[in-house]
Amino acid sequence: MQLWLCCALLVFVAGGCLAQKPRPCKSPPLFEGSFSVVAQNGDFLGLGKQSYDAILKRIRIREFVMAGNHTEVIDALLLYQEKLMYQIDYKHRTCQKQALIDEFHPMEIPANSTLLGQVVLGSLSAPGEGVLANSWTGDLPEVKGWYAMTFTEFGCFPVGLLYSVPKTDLIVGSFFNNIRGIEDPSVFIPPPFCDDATLKAGEGNFFSVFF
Amino acid sequence: MQLWLCCALLVFVAGGCLAQKPRPCKSPPLFEGSFSVVAQNGDFLGLGKQSYDAILKRIRIREFVMAGNHTEVIDALLLYQEKLMYQIDYKHRTCQKQALIDEFHPMEIPANSTLLGQVVLGSLSAPGEGVLANSWTGDLPEVKGWYAMTFTEFGCFPVGLLYSVPKTDLIVGSFFNNIRGIEDPSVFIPPPFCDDATLKAGEGNFFSVFF
Repeated sequence: MQLWLCCALLVFVAGGCLAQKPRPCKSPPLFEGSFSVVAQNGDFLGLGKQSYDAILKRIRIREFVMAGNHTEVIDALLLYQEKLMYQIDYKHRTCQKQALIDEFHPMEIPANSTLLGQVVLGSLSAPGEGVLANSWTGDLPEVKGWYAMTFTEFGCFPVGLLYSVPKTDLIVGSFFNNIRGIEDPSVFIPPPFCDDATLKAGEGNFFSVFF
Repeated sequence: MQLWLCCALLVFVAGGCLAQKPRPCKSPPLFEGSFSVVAQNGDFLGLGKQSYDAILKRIRIREFVMAGNHTEVIDALLLYQEKLMYQIDYKHRTCQKQALIDEFHPMEIPANSTLLGQVVLGSLSAPGEGVLANSWTGDLPEVKGWYAMTFTEFGCFPVGLLYSVPKTDLIVGSFFNNIRGIEDPSVFIPPPFCDDATLKAGEGNFFSVFF
């Protein structure tokens, strides 16, 4: 009799958990993943890989950019605890070191976002055909625009990001091939040829990596 | 001994199948799903649901559109075997009937597409956190643009679609909540108030539903 009561309670509690409305979530503290960015009506294309460590507040971004006829390789290491940003050029073995002024911004759904809805990407009609995700939106008052972002329900990994700046630009970010943990922790150590780098004038932030 | 040989062969064959390069695929013949469209730098927003029957060549599309300050509800039934398109207005119980000139176009990856890559949306680090998908690209020579589309590896359901028309527009389509089969087959039957509809002048096609 007591066993039945326990089972009934368990089912009730589990049902309650499943029925909960999705909440803004935070990505795993250590993960690596790839991303693509399309902007300027397709004239700007970026394809990159990020290593993300929210515990020691470090990010490494490597990206291949095509903007019009111009191509560029970006390789940046952001060490927020040391407030330093390295821009690394392995080909020429050169390194630029710059002060980092912004705070570490964790990969998460902003708390003031509005839930657009819970969606299945692909399908749940058969195993392996889909994944449960949540789409969120919010305003970008400084540009009179809005954003929409989709993160997986389980794991809270980023999937898609859309920035709309009306009459100007639509920026589409896609995230994929995420893996928990850091394959090679040395990605967060500046290469030896960065030891001699002198601190460059001016201050950098997360966005100055890309623009 | 023979059992071991069979097992070894099975593993070998299975390995061969898994190692195969993704091929352009076709979506299930009967499915329903939702979609969103963003265009004109975010000034055009559409949210809809489609019922798709590739066997009897029928499509039903219901969409809510916001374009600038203008909103619209689209409800269209395309019957390719009868070469007829109905535009249905349940609120006013009115119906427009028009000749359909294009051929039924199955939901598939065009055969001449180029594989961009196989990707995991989300993560495969734990169950339920991700889904395997393939991204494809191709040219749109008539507008000097290109497209990119992502379909799930298992099931071949659409996930994302990007149309780039350089210097003009970026159209972003997202597909979600797909389900195999048709929940209610009467979605493909014109409602009774369509019986009296007279054939409208001019010819329609799939795209004239949206524009």
